[in-house]
Amino acid sequence: MQGSVIYGPGDVRFEQRDDPTITESTDAIIKISATCVCGSDLWDYRGINQITEPTPMGHEYCGIVQAVGSEVQQVRPGQFVIGSFFASDNTCAICQAGYHTSCIHRQFIGAGGAQAEYLRVPLADGTLVATPDIPSRELIPSLLAASDVLGTGWFAAIAAEVRPGNTVAVVGDGAVGLLGVLAARQLGADTIIAMSRHQDRQKLALDFGASDIVTTRGDDGVAHIKELTDGLGAHSVIEAVGTQESMMQAIRATRPGGHVGYVGVSHGVELPGQELFYSHVHLHGGPAPVRRFLPELIDLIWNDQIDPGRVFDLNLPLSDVAEGYQAMDQRRAIKALLWP
Amino acid sequence: MQGSVIYGPGDVRFEQRDDPTITESTDAIIKISATCVCGSDLWDYRGINQITEPTPMGHEYCGIVQAVGSEVQQVRPGQFVIGSFFASDNTCAICQAGYHTSCIHRQFIGAGGAQAEYLRVPLADGTLVATPDIPSRELIPSLLAASDVLGTGWFAAIAAEVRPGNTVAVVGDGAVGLLGVLAARQLGADTIIAMSRHQDRQKLALDFGASDIVTTRGDDGVAHIKELTDGLGAHSVIEAVGTQESMMQAIRATRPGGHVGYVGVSHGVELPGQELFYSHVHLHGGPAPVRRFLPELIDLIWNDQIDPGRVFDLNLPLSDVAEGYQAMDQRRAIKALLWP
Repeated sequence: MQGSVIYGPGDVRFEQRDDPTITESTDAIIKISATCVCGSDLWDYRGINQITEPTPMGHEYCGIVQAVGSEVQQVRPGQFVIGSFFASDNTCAICQAGYHTSCIHRQFIGAGGAQAEYLRVPLADGTLVATPDIPSRELIPSLLAASDVLGTGWFAAIAAEVRPGNTVAVVGDGAVGLLGVLAARQLGADTIIAMSRHQDRQKLALDFGASDIVTTRGDDGVAHIKELTDGLGAHSVIEAVGTQESMMQAIRATRPGGHVGYVGVSHGVELPGQELFYSHVHLHGGPAPVRRFLPELIDLIWNDQIDPGRVFDLNLPLSDVAEGYQAMDQRRAIKALLWP
Repeated sequence: MQGSVIYGPGDVRFEQRDDPTITESTDAIIKISATCVCGSDLWDYRGINQITEPTPMGHEYCGIVQAVGSEVQQVRPGQFVIGSFFASDNTCAICQAGYHTSCIHRQFIGAGGAQAEYLRVPLADGTLVATPDIPSRELIPSLLAASDVLGTGWFAAIAAEVRPGNTVAVVGDGAVGLLGVLAARQLGADTIIAMSRHQDRQKLALDFGASDIVTTRGDDGVAHIKELTDGLGAHSVIEAVGTQESMMQAIRATRPGGHVGYVGVSHGVELPGQELFYSHVHLHGGPAPVRRFLPELIDLIWNDQIDPGRVFDLNLPLSDVAEGYQAMDQRRAIKALLWP
């Protein structure tokens, strides 16, 4: 088969790779229907994460089950399935508590490289969720979004304890931040403030349910959020970037007793203990346990309640994967969908 | 009147001070029945917080109302009252959400110095809670504990989301940590692991409801907690010290999805963002909003359900306040109660 491999900063190639095979009796092999480029892939593409050897890329996927190992019972060949970027057993105490991305048996899906024609998914029964039927092509972008960015934005809103009637601020206007807006709207937030300086992203945020747009950032952005919240700060703040500036912006924009849900993969962040102590905020986040939310999210998509696939503003054949990275790196696209 | 004043590291004096007077129409003056030395007072005593001028000390108090300002309606002269270390209006949105120590009108009680014969309490209606009657002398230590250390240990357990049947670990064996054990027991925790290397404190922890004692700390302490929790870590961890080591110990001893409740006043702490991200813990804490819990805690004490006053293992006349600081600094006493 063919798939993407990164060789170094800015160097993603589409090339021949070995077909994946069942190596454990709990594996499944799926034929990818659609995959995409993640904001977190750009940490590699930009050289912020070091690449030490040619590495298959991609961890977002949906597709048709081709084969399963002898122990797989829930998942059958022919089903259309979606999974998260970590395989999980869905049975350990940590999974049962809803933290599948910290499953005691977790395995990173990206090791197999989902930007390809086929993918081996370990722990198939615990990882994959089937749709009610084979979806139309129109539904596939939204179902693919559930694999990571929708589930991550959703978890951020849950971690930020978004409640009906509350005020929510969203730091970060990438696909995850935008889908955090969508999640906050679904969870009943009253005021949803999207922080964005890009017109196309502002528009999508408003379409997803944002009530206000704040174009400032840093201290000015915090001051702006306070102006909109009686000087107190938002009840809930979603952090979807992962830098020192964005984390401090999120913490400072939250009222005492409020909640920060952070899902931007943390890079070089050091949180000052004393400021955090006196801020009185709740802090929760990490790699989103997308598997927890998949049944509910698939249901919402299948019944046309939400349309998260709109974050894909660039559609490419999988063979043009390099262009997908470049477009996202240059912020010409919010998120690139790749069709094998 | 006479009261304590700190002049510099190790230099606490008992000396003549001006009697407090009503300066705002919302003030009350109370005659102190008992006060004490706080673990956080030791940050000053040890020179970790800088003392720039002679400063009255003390922020824990209970006593009899002597006089009230013209606007005070809930509190009457002759009542026995308890308040927290921050005065709060109890009406703003932040107080209503339960975060009185971040009240938009908060004032630090310590500015008046509660280690004295009399104390001015601002915002008396919002700050003070009266007992059902004048208490016996035997009840006073426990009622005094409610003013800070009990309320702080209680908040830590609430912030750590202690639930019936859960496993709780407590980092710190000072009065707050010990009362965190008591709170966890009251809140229905199953296994309560107290981390302590001091025999007298271990005994009190066991009396307050601890089921296990761990004498190691740092990485060894974390490994010990994991051994006791199927390798996963505790559901809830109470942090009651405030140092880098204790915070990291608390975070690392918590299972993914679990909760850290931290109330040790943070000194020189920097939390590594990436480790926190992948830890999947919930982090919440800060200056305990003791006022939120006072009615419930007074009720439990009044009805002999809890006996938090046992943390006072040294009783002194107020005039011997300097000895109280020295005994706590040298860890000869857990907590010194001062009788005017």
